[in-house]
Amino acid sequence: MANEVKLHGIAESLFVCGVKTALNLKDVKYEFVVEDLSNKSADLLKYNPVYKKVPVLVHNGNPISESLVIVEYIDEVWKGVPILPQDAYEKAQARFWAKVVNDKCFPAVVNAFSSNGEEQAVAEAHEALQFLENELKVKGSKFFGGDNINLVDIAATFVAFWIGAAEEALGIEVMSKHKFPKLTEWSDNYINCQAVKDSLPPRENVVSYFKKRFGKA
Amino acid sequence: MANEVKLHGIAESLFVCGVKTALNLKDVKYEFVVEDLSNKSADLLKYNPVYKKVPVLVHNGNPISESLVIVEYIDEVWKGVPILPQDAYEKAQARFWAKVVNDKCFPAVVNAFSSNGEEQAVAEAHEALQFLENELKVKGSKFFGGDNINLVDIAATFVAFWIGAAEEALGIEVMSKHKFPKLTEWSDNYINCQAVKDSLPPRENVVSYFKKRFGKA
Repeated sequence: MANEVKLHGIAESLFVCGVKTALNLKDVKYEFVVEDLSNKSADLLKYNPVYKKVPVLVHNGNPISESLVIVEYIDEVWKGVPILPQDAYEKAQARFWAKVVNDKCFPAVVNAFSSNGEEQAVAEAHEALQFLENELKVKGSKFFGGDNINLVDIAATFVAFWIGAAEEALGIEVMSKHKFPKLTEWSDNYINCQAVKDSLPPRENVVSYFKKRFGKA
Repeated sequence: MANEVKLHGIAESLFVCGVKTALNLKDVKYEFVVEDLSNKSADLLKYNPVYKKVPVLVHNGNPISESLVIVEYIDEVWKGVPILPQDAYEKAQARFWAKVVNDKCFPAVVNAFSSNGEEQAVAEAHEALQFLENELKVKGSKFFGGDNINLVDIAATFVAFWIGAAEEALGIEVMSKHKFPKLTEWSDNYINCQAVKDSLPPRENVVSYFKKRFGKA
């Protein structure tokens, strides 16, 4: 069977990079189809009519949307390094924490930057990130996944790379090393994984992306 | 091994009923622990410190939160009728649509009721529900899951039962039979499944719950 894998995305999207990391972990070769989000392709609109967003993975012509759904699909289809735990309870915990990262931490952090560092918004971002800090403390491991990265680490890509770039772009501190020592250590470990490194865009591109997005350029 | 299953919840919660349906489908015996959401139990706060919400399933002392995560856990631990498709692509599609129901349709419908039927809010609810109507039309099957209910049907519990009760409580129409014939037919089929029937509270309780919630009682 042909094994054609295409990933529609933009280099600066953390959700796209999470999917790239999963593909890299499984050593899957793929074609990266760059989308222009100000002028979305007919393919993107056809593949993801509900959200019209990237990433979309197209495997042998079958489109899959939503980053965590895509990562679970990749884990199931391609064997090798597992991205989700095998044990049903640990798997449920990983899914729960990935959801916390995506649905609670990410919007809180975006809001802290969007509000230009407004005190209450930053406090809410801290409160959300504190759950991740505590989880790392309780686990006492290098990654959320233990010795190796898993679904939660991939979901938290924005913590490791995008927060620092947005802080630099906007001159606002949202995640201080002092307040989040475990998350800071985790970030360093995470972005030094080869599969992650190979998925990330140059930092300066992300900084200038945020400057544009938040009207600082 | 002991197989102790407790479900913390309130009878009126659609998310709790979804989990009950999954347990019923698998013929799992469980203890229902009724929570008072205005005075949450120490157990609930311990089991779900991030969201402090029901449902929480506790299986042999291990707590699991977030309804879709719980349903996937139930599907994995208890064999019998499958709740997720076996094929990886179909499974990804089911996860995607369950997410659409939870993250897009549900908030839009809640907003339509919260706004007391404000035109724009109802139009947005219609737009969201139309995706489900179309999906049923494309599938041409009795349920989102085909001949049997699956994760998407369970996620859409609120469409089948709560929308009608909220319409009655508030005197607002959000989902007309005329506009959504497939969803209406699906709703009838869904609430007539034994596993679903056994999970639902009496309709009049839900109507009076909504009257209180939206200040109509």
